[in-house]
Amino acid sequence: MIKNVIPEDIGYLSRAFQLARKGRFTTMPNPNVGCVIVKDNHVIGEGYHMRAGENHAEINALSVAGNFAKGATAYVTLEPCSHYGRTPPCTTALIKSGIKRVVVSMLDPHPDLTGRGIQLLKQSGILVSHSIMLSEAESINKGFIKRIRTGMPWIKLKLASSLDGRVAMSSGESKWITSVQSRQDVQCFRAESDVILSTASTVLMDNPRLNVRWSCFSKEMKNIYINGNQIRHPLRVIIDSTNRILPTHRFIQNEGGVILVRIKKDNLNWPKSVEQLLVSPIVNKSGLNQINLKKLMQYLACYLKINSVWVESGPTLSGALLDIGLVDEVILYQAIKFLGSNAKPLCLLPNLNKLSDIKTFKLIDITSIGPDIRLILQPNTVV
Amino acid sequence: MIKNVIPEDIGYLSRAFQLARKGRFTTMPNPNVGCVIVKDNHVIGEGYHMRAGENHAEINALSVAGNFAKGATAYVTLEPCSHYGRTPPCTTALIKSGIKRVVVSMLDPHPDLTGRGIQLLKQSGILVSHSIMLSEAESINKGFIKRIRTGMPWIKLKLASSLDGRVAMSSGESKWITSVQSRQDVQCFRAESDVILSTASTVLMDNPRLNVRWSCFSKEMKNIYINGNQIRHPLRVIIDSTNRILPTHRFIQNEGGVILVRIKKDNLNWPKSVEQLLVSPIVNKSGLNQINLKKLMQYLACYLKINSVWVESGPTLSGALLDIGLVDEVILYQAIKFLGSNAKPLCLLPNLNKLSDIKTFKLIDITSIGPDIRLILQPNTVV
Repeated sequence: MIKNVIPEDIGYLSRAFQLARKGRFTTMPNPNVGCVIVKDNHVIGEGYHMRAGENHAEINALSVAGNFAKGATAYVTLEPCSHYGRTPPCTTALIKSGIKRVVVSMLDPHPDLTGRGIQLLKQSGILVSHSIMLSEAESINKGFIKRIRTGMPWIKLKLASSLDGRVAMSSGESKWITSVQSRQDVQCFRAESDVILSTASTVLMDNPRLNVRWSCFSKEMKNIYINGNQIRHPLRVIIDSTNRILPTHRFIQNEGGVILVRIKKDNLNWPKSVEQLLVSPIVNKSGLNQINLKKLMQYLACYLKINSVWVESGPTLSGALLDIGLVDEVILYQAIKFLGSNAKPLCLLPNLNKLSDIKTFKLIDITSIGPDIRLILQPNTVV
Repeated sequence: MIKNVIPEDIGYLSRAFQLARKGRFTTMPNPNVGCVIVKDNHVIGEGYHMRAGENHAEINALSVAGNFAKGATAYVTLEPCSHYGRTPPCTTALIKSGIKRVVVSMLDPHPDLTGRGIQLLKQSGILVSHSIMLSEAESINKGFIKRIRTGMPWIKLKLASSLDGRVAMSSGESKWITSVQSRQDVQCFRAESDVILSTASTVLMDNPRLNVRWSCFSKEMKNIYINGNQIRHPLRVIIDSTNRILPTHRFIQNEGGVILVRIKKDNLNWPKSVEQLLVSPIVNKSGLNQINLKKLMQYLACYLKINSVWVESGPTLSGALLDIGLVDEVILYQAIKFLGSNAKPLCLLPNLNKLSDIKTFKLIDITSIGPDIRLILQPNTVV
């Protein structure tokens, strides 16, 4: 569907994607969007969307370009909005600026809105090219797009194990299976996510902070967040069906909201940042009462506009999410070690009995992180 | 220790290593050696050692150079031999040829021979530079060097598992965990090895051929072996302490010798290619009688001049070799799958109880093989 595209368009749109990515730690629940304005082969304005409620990418780029925008081309990674939200519509601003041509990567994924912005631009005599570099557009806003299309968030499961697929010795001894570099790498995934999902078992075992720590950020991330104050702290959602979490647990003290997912509320004296959410249990394959994970995810997406969930937990929740097919991406850190056949397994997946039951994945990325390996996998939809 | 070396030396020596590698499927028990002869910045002769009993690399290169060798420089990846073996010494040939300078990578690793070839060349007035590109020299002849230095072969353990470290469903169902590409890749490792080591359990379960199949070779390998007749078939060494292997098993029928490692001989009618080797058992940590694996390896190296052993077996032998620290290199194929926590483990390593017991490795190489990943690991000597 590439039409009316000149070779330069790809270069400028790539730059717009680069800008869009800068917002990836903060735009939630909005998508990441970048915009470049070009006239006579010179970039005269650039911008990206930084935070919900603040300017959209087009507005930021137009304000740099000023009056020079007249007769220029605007490159936008997502169809400009045509409706009044927290800010006025970008289509109006583009039309007013005198822009001559707009190159759009992806149309608005919302079925009620798709194509509407473009139609308005065309009606004002602006030339429009669209549906270019769609795989980049899909990959930069996986969570937002999935939520709009399906009412579910994009779910990333973090796993860390030895090469023989173990997470702890049979005694439970488990500290430092993977390296400090891998644990720093996790910070970036946490910071990109709207929710960190874990369980009471993990909290009781490790008393983790489950937060985003500026001091652990990479150089690239530190360049975006000049200091720790600008960090957006993901919402911590903790499955706690038997009310084992107490106000004294370390993560409760940290900045950022908390949802305790429970079957029954308690009457403890919780700080304002903590909410108790009741989710009805279901009986799982092993006959045990278990929080309805699908319902929880739907709630997060539909009521809280959560685009992306980062799961850091033990073998039980990891296994359950894989088992019911809720995982969109696995981030697996492998330490170059063997813990032995008595050590504890990576995921409790006891219901796989035949080879035809097994979970197969596509390898999306592989890289070394310090002395460890990091794999990124996506499930094969057809096994 | 790089002295008297000019920049060009590295380039020509690299070419000599390239040539040396061509012999890697056939030189056993000899090392891989390559030689390049250069005069006035032109290569006038090249050669490598192809097969024990045939010409050494220097002789092949000198025969191409002919009379032009006078006044030239010879680049050799290993110190030229100074003794009569199955062929006359290369030092004599180099001296006779009128070569002016010899650049040697590694000295002979044998303590009684090291430096002797070089001394003879120097005594004849030839300029000698040596001990250059030593890591290449070590890596190209790992097996030969280890055998000469320690009386043990270089032991490579092949493992293949899912990402959660499993090799088969609990039912035993296990066909095709890794891909056809990985199984082809294994052919190359088999062909490079002097011995394929396996167990009666593996033979009884899979009835494998345990041979080298020309049809599965890569293009590079097919260019060296123009047809299947030139293949050297590794010796198959099968641990069979309870005499379960029968003359009817498939691998017995294939080309290549067989050693059945037993505690007691049987009186079956074996083909000439099969030898029954008695190795005394030892009591292992779990209190079971087990073939003394260290003694077996010493026998292979010292009596049969085996440089390299390729282990393809099940979790018991793999675990035992890792447990007693006999493995020099692990080749791990990972299928991008999860078989679940009831599935069978990669290695039986039941004696690891504390984190301080675990086996840690250096990652030497990582590559994708078809849809799978292949890791090459070497054990950390200091944990």
